[in-house]
Amino acid sequence: MKSIDVCLTPDLLHLHKIENSIVVVTDIFRATSCMTTAFAHGVRSIIPVATVEECYDLQKKGFVAAAERNAQKVEGFDLDNSPFSYMDDRLIGADIAMTTTNGTLSITKAKAEAVKVLVGAFLNLGAVANYLKSQQYDVLVLCAGWKGRVNLEDSLFAGALVEALQNDYLVGEDSALIAQRMYGQAKADLMGYVASSSHVRRLQRLGIQKDISFCLQHDLYDVVPVLRGNTLVAM
Amino acid sequence: MKSIDVCLTPDLLHLHKIENSIVVVTDIFRATSCMTTAFAHGVRSIIPVATVEECYDLQKKGFVAAAERNAQKVEGFDLDNSPFSYMDDRLIGADIAMTTTNGTLSITKAKAEAVKVLVGAFLNLGAVANYLKSQQYDVLVLCAGWKGRVNLEDSLFAGALVEALQNDYLVGEDSALIAQRMYGQAKADLMGYVASSSHVRRLQRLGIQKDISFCLQHDLYDVVPVLRGNTLVAM
Repeated sequence: MKSIDVCLTPDLLHLHKIENSIVVVTDIFRATSCMTTAFAHGVRSIIPVATVEECYDLQKKGFVAAAERNAQKVEGFDLDNSPFSYMDDRLIGADIAMTTTNGTLSITKAKAEAVKVLVGAFLNLGAVANYLKSQQYDVLVLCAGWKGRVNLEDSLFAGALVEALQNDYLVGEDSALIAQRMYGQAKADLMGYVASSSHVRRLQRLGIQKDISFCLQHDLYDVVPVLRGNTLVAM
Repeated sequence: MKSIDVCLTPDLLHLHKIENSIVVVTDIFRATSCMTTAFAHGVRSIIPVATVEECYDLQKKGFVAAAERNAQKVEGFDLDNSPFSYMDDRLIGADIAMTTTNGTLSITKAKAEAVKVLVGAFLNLGAVANYLKSQQYDVLVLCAGWKGRVNLEDSLFAGALVEALQNDYLVGEDSALIAQRMYGQAKADLMGYVASSSHVRRLQRLGIQKDISFCLQHDLYDVVPVLRGNTLVAM
């Protein structure tokens, strides 16, 4: 039977064998929520890069460039890290280069070994779950966390995906159990559950409360971003 | 105000600044439960060592030696990793050298930087909490985990300690919130909650169910093991 496992932060990725796994990277606030929103609104491709410098180089080559550090837009770039910025008709068909504090780094870390790297968020939870059910591989949910640390919202997404897949996959590892039980405890009021998390407090200080409620919505979009080479595209 | 934080596995210890913290190492199944039991029954000192070789060297120097790997006693050593093995009148006043898969390694990792290293378990939860309340330092609960991975039982102990200290300490980080909420969900039936954990299944296969129920008892002992130099003693 296929198994599903959870890596609570990219700093623990070395503990996981992923040669036979599809890795689902999640960074709920806000990178993977933005990516999902972008593809749902017609963006053609997103190149996730680990550093601001790489992102700047791609901007010079003509990409629409999005760079975020510490939850704020880096000066000189075209787009910030709010999902609302990607609901823009001018971005239909666009090729974007993106770097964020945590999310894009996780994608670049996973791509060397995994069978496939997908982008997951609450916004496309059902679409990701349905795609995975059709595949024969194990699944690892890779939570982007915050600068190496575990966070609440990414762990909750991991738990939601474990719950969605529990009848089709073995759930054998404690990190997957922890995530699944957290989600079970939280799902009736996700917003209330994450209200005291460190990153929500960080985002609230920056005045982006509406991003938080947006990113916690389930199944708004039927799109599965997948990494092909170095580039994310809609499957 | 003092703060309490949780490191869910020693593989994430690099993310924590502990120069101003008392570190409470926990390895519920079973190293820190054994250590607590040992001191409560009159053992004089325990030297935790990271490797089987170091433990063997100390055995040759006259220490009572306990070595466990993969939940089983290493051949040639005096004691295994069951708390019941430490309820032995012949060990009153004894000096023990101990190495275990996870717990002793966490202690040796923390000792270089922390203000102080304590040993915590459900068995001495109240005693550890009371001691910490009397101190001015921040607290980091260091979960020993399993070979670098997060586990259920150590995270639950961390949550129990956060709950016990929440009125005296700031709880600001998501890992502490996660642990605290897990414990809140689990505490009415800890045994049921951990029954599906990977390590409980591992221990059950080895036939040591009674160790599991023993290690989940709260406040059986009023003893706080503390590291002095390289040696644990009862405070």
